[in-house]
Amino acid sequence: MKSTPATPKHPIESAAPKLLARVPMHVRWRDLDAFNHVNNSSYLTYLEEARLSWLKDIPGPWYDEHAVPVMVASELNYRAPIAWPAETTVELYCERLGRSSLSISHRIVEVGEKPSPQLYCDGRVVLAWMDPTRGKSVPLPKAVRDACSDE
Amino acid sequence: MKSTPATPKHPIESAAPKLLARVPMHVRWRDLDAFNHVNNSSYLTYLEEARLSWLKDIPGPWYDEHAVPVMVASELNYRAPIAWPAETTVELYCERLGRSSLSISHRIVEVGEKPSPQLYCDGRVVLAWMDPTRGKSVPLPKAVRDACSDE
Amino acid sequence: MKSTPATPKHPIESAAPKLLARVPMHVRWRDLDAFNHVNNSSYLTYLEEARLSWLKDIPGPWYDEHAVPVMVASELNYRAPIAWPAETTVELYCERLGRSSLSISHRIVEVGEKPSPQLYCDGRVVLAWMDPTRGKSVPLPKAVRDACSDE
Amino acid sequence: MKSTPATPKHPIESAAPKLLARVPMHVRWRDLDAFNHVNNSSYLTYLEEARLSWLKDIPGPWYDEHAVPVMVASELNYRAPIAWPAETTVELYCERLGRSSLSISHRIVEVGEKPSPQLYCDGRVVLAWMDPTRGKSVPLPKAVRDACSDE
Repeated sequence: MKSTPATPKHPIESAAPKLLARVPMHVRWRDLDAFNHVNNSSYLTYLEEARLSWLKDIPGPWYDEHAVPVMVASELNYRAPIAWPAETTVELYCERLGRSSLSISHRIVEVGEKPSPQLYCDGRVVLAWMDPTRGKSVPLPKAVRDACSDE
Repeated sequence: MKSTPATPKHPIESAAPKLLARVPMHVRWRDLDAFNHVNNSSYLTYLEEARLSWLKDIPGPWYDEHAVPVMVASELNYRAPIAWPAETTVELYCERLGRSSLSISHRIVEVGEKPSPQLYCDGRVVLAWMDPTRGKSVPLPKAVRDACSDE
Repeated sequence: MKSTPATPKHPIESAAPKLLARVPMHVRWRDLDAFNHVNNSSYLTYLEEARLSWLKDIPGPWYDEHAVPVMVASELNYRAPIAWPAETTVELYCERLGRSSLSISHRIVEVGEKPSPQLYCDGRVVLAWMDPTRGKSVPLPKAVRDACSDE
Repeated sequence: MKSTPATPKHPIESAAPKLLARVPMHVRWRDLDAFNHVNNSSYLTYLEEARLSWLKDIPGPWYDEHAVPVMVASELNYRAPIAWPAETTVELYCERLGRSSLSISHRIVEVGEKPSPQLYCDGRVVLAWMDPTRGKSVPLPKAVRDACSDE
């Protein structure tokens, strides 16, 4: 009997999430708080900055007046404190691509030549594209979908 | 036959999480971003501010030079955008009390007289107390443990 | 002999600047930096917050699509560091009222019952109202002018 | 008749202020506010970041436990709004070198090849070195003085 490989239900989700971007992220002194480490809220700013750096370079519009991304959820695991000065890299991966939403997982790591650079933070954010004039979710812009897909 | 109630495995976790604090939180205009809503990172600042407001009023020290709280993880569900101006309330609950860690769940809600005020955000943060001089976790300070326990 | 009071050259600028607003300003822990004092940039946020608190309550519109305020200059004298926790008051004064610009001087002071509360910061900001579609200055909105004038 | 050049009264202040540093400054999206331009407070963060970038590279210590810099005053002229995305350069100059204080003037300019790049902001900050344990001003650290002097 011939074995037919089952059609994967979610062909777009590959085993290894697709790397979307690796973005250098400079730590500002003002990102520290009075405990002398990067404040927990600054990590979300790093992710936002990396995400926008990725989005503004994809070929095609990632938003218009009827489709803007909004943050639905965030999950951050703080693996090691970040002191100052520091240069980091934010890696973004497409974890899950939905009709109107997108889960982007991340790793914030130490910059350098070390064989195993320090992992500062991992986790994910979930974005949904919404029509702000109607308050309803809309399909992901084609450029975003294409940029997340393994061609 | 006598019925012996089963010993709960986690006696410290009650069905209804204990309310730790309800803290008024004023939204600053600077908390908005260029999308004209409170930026996703500002929510973590609201939680931090509410947490410190709670901690600084508990009877007894919540940190010393050998026991400082560090953020281990955060999970935020953004339920509705916050526009400006706005006054909100941050509710903090003891979700799980461990030996050296504490999970604090939260609700950020609209201030006002409405029967069902708008929920802006829910989720949790996990804190662990560490000895910064040794980089090791330490038991929760007694004052923190007491403040989280049901009497 | 009749004394005729001299006509003041700048009738709009009175000897004692008009108090525009006294706004309570809560210091957030995140306003601190790694030196454990309120960061120098946070003072501008306090002034902005106080200014908007004043403007949103004046009777009449303080901006429209052809007249928005932009910051032209700021001068801050840091008189004493602000530690945490702290509650402060921001006092705003009309220092100079021009055709399209407004100089607002300020004092950020300690809250409390002391006869001479600590002065944390004084100085001024200069705002000009601009038409963003044409990049030109426009006359101050009537509501702003009225709010600054000693009727 | 022989002309004897007058001895300058303040030999340390030369006609052209000494350039201390030219620091690339990336504009983060979070630096914008709801008016879609870099918020006025972010400029102080850019100056702080540039100042620390300069200080951490001078040969010799720029602070110790008995001599830390504190901000005494800031004056900013906002010459043009900064939109996003943008890459800027912060130029710092030694404007005045005192016993315990230092006035650093600045220019924040557009990055690029233009013959006359856009000036976004100029002005100055005044710093004083203080002994935090005694609350008194102290002489500038030698490394700072040397770095500001014309050899």
